[in-house]
Amino acid sequence: MPRIEIICVGNELLMGSTVNTNASWLSQKIYKLGCVTARHTVVGDDVDSIAEAVREALKRRTDLLIVTGGLGPTYDDKTLKGVAKALRRKLEVNKEALKQVEAKYRELAERGVIAKFELTPSRVKIATLPSKSIPIRNPVGIAPAVIINYKTSKIICLPGVPAEVKAIFTESVAPIIKQMVGDLFVAEGCLEVKSLPESSIAPILDKVVERRRGVYVKSHPRGFEGSEPKLEIYISVTKPSKAEAEAVKEEVLSELATAICEAGGEVRRKQP
Amino acid sequence: MPRIEIICVGNELLMGSTVNTNASWLSQKIYKLGCVTARHTVVGDDVDSIAEAVREALKRRTDLLIVTGGLGPTYDDKTLKGVAKALRRKLEVNKEALKQVEAKYRELAERGVIAKFELTPSRVKIATLPSKSIPIRNPVGIAPAVIINYKTSKIICLPGVPAEVKAIFTESVAPIIKQMVGDLFVAEGCLEVKSLPESSIAPILDKVVERRRGVYVKSHPRGFEGSEPKLEIYISVTKPSKAEAEAVKEEVLSELATAICEAGGEVRRKQP
Repeated sequence: MPRIEIICVGNELLMGSTVNTNASWLSQKIYKLGCVTARHTVVGDDVDSIAEAVREALKRRTDLLIVTGGLGPTYDDKTLKGVAKALRRKLEVNKEALKQVEAKYRELAERGVIAKFELTPSRVKIATLPSKSIPIRNPVGIAPAVIINYKTSKIICLPGVPAEVKAIFTESVAPIIKQMVGDLFVAEGCLEVKSLPESSIAPILDKVVERRRGVYVKSHPRGFEGSEPKLEIYISVTKPSKAEAEAVKEEVLSELATAICEAGGEVRRKQP
Repeated sequence: MPRIEIICVGNELLMGSTVNTNASWLSQKIYKLGCVTARHTVVGDDVDSIAEAVREALKRRTDLLIVTGGLGPTYDDKTLKGVAKALRRKLEVNKEALKQVEAKYRELAERGVIAKFELTPSRVKIATLPSKSIPIRNPVGIAPAVIINYKTSKIICLPGVPAEVKAIFTESVAPIIKQMVGDLFVAEGCLEVKSLPESSIAPILDKVVERRRGVYVKSHPRGFEGSEPKLEIYISVTKPSKAEAEAVKEEVLSELATAICEAGGEVRRKQP
């Protein structure tokens, strides 16, 4: 299984004004492709913090490092500076990226959104990438995404705007991950349990997981353990075929439901 | 300014089924107390990953490390094991924590939620803490939070359930941060800008920030840079008095509004 990590860059995440939905959206998509993201890191708009986080992720032998945010035209868009510093590569205007950026601003000028076409320093900055970068088309925004191959790792930098993250991931990143992971299928299920606290369910879950591979079970308290116990038990099964994943999931769900009923809990299936 | 980091523990965060609202809620509260969180890290329910993340945060001279999640009774609640490993401390049943846990389960038995009072291994686990830990009261759930003083750092472990995080933070963690930070006040403002792309606003922001201390300005694209440019410019000013913070904020907001109008943008104030 490849090791995938995500670094999100943005002071607004560290100030708590923005919830990190990019990390969860990306992780969910990666999970559906058969792989669990190994770590999320959030750092601010600071070259040294970004470089440090990138270096640390590479030290952990990360195969694919996805970095989001900080590709725009303003002074605090510092991701590519940070990545270049971590890899000891120079920043240089990338011809292909400049072509993409130029086309976008020409179009804006034609539509009258900007007064005239002009490649200002802020706009050229968007196309200034670490050396040996490969720009990727941004179908909805201006800043191209960036692929950098470094030793045995691949670093992909995406913008921070969620709509741009989603479009670029779907078009260009998902196929790369699919190829790294190979054919794996995930089947998911969920049980809602009432009238039994998590501490009473813990030994039941232990038993089910002990005996099986590729099966993941986790309980999430939804009511307060202290007042009205209500739990969700999430089950996922990862297997090389869809049929096998579904079959094992059914087996686990009914085994759990039986054991929980016997222990005095109320249980019902629910959409995961 | 103290260095504060947050580590969130939970496979569900890395699988993308749960959005990390704990990190943003905590960061927002910490920011209102005058301090920007330095980093968020998310790791899975794995002792070695937790221990590694804790060790790394302490190496970065973190004064206060907040760890959320993984304090419950199930086999995959591994936070305290991970913290103990990072600090090379033993895990032991903490008398004060056991008293708190016992009282909660006695109450559950009295109310008939559990059939009888019993300190099962899963329940004693909740009170099994790294040596020299100080348990903190959990006003809404069962697992006590944990304070550990380690060299010049303080580690605070909170449960993962958002209602428990909020209650314990407000009651017991906010006062600790307030004391670390001292008296600082944050004034926030926001401008909505239309008809001018971010690349045209970038040089205006540069100028305003260059000349001032304690002033933070960041633009966030809300429409697509490529189609209908719409931006929010967030401003915050941190000063030792509320009056000063408010005065500087007003100054910055009107200076920005004037410059943006002169450049051809439409601008209006909005709630931050």
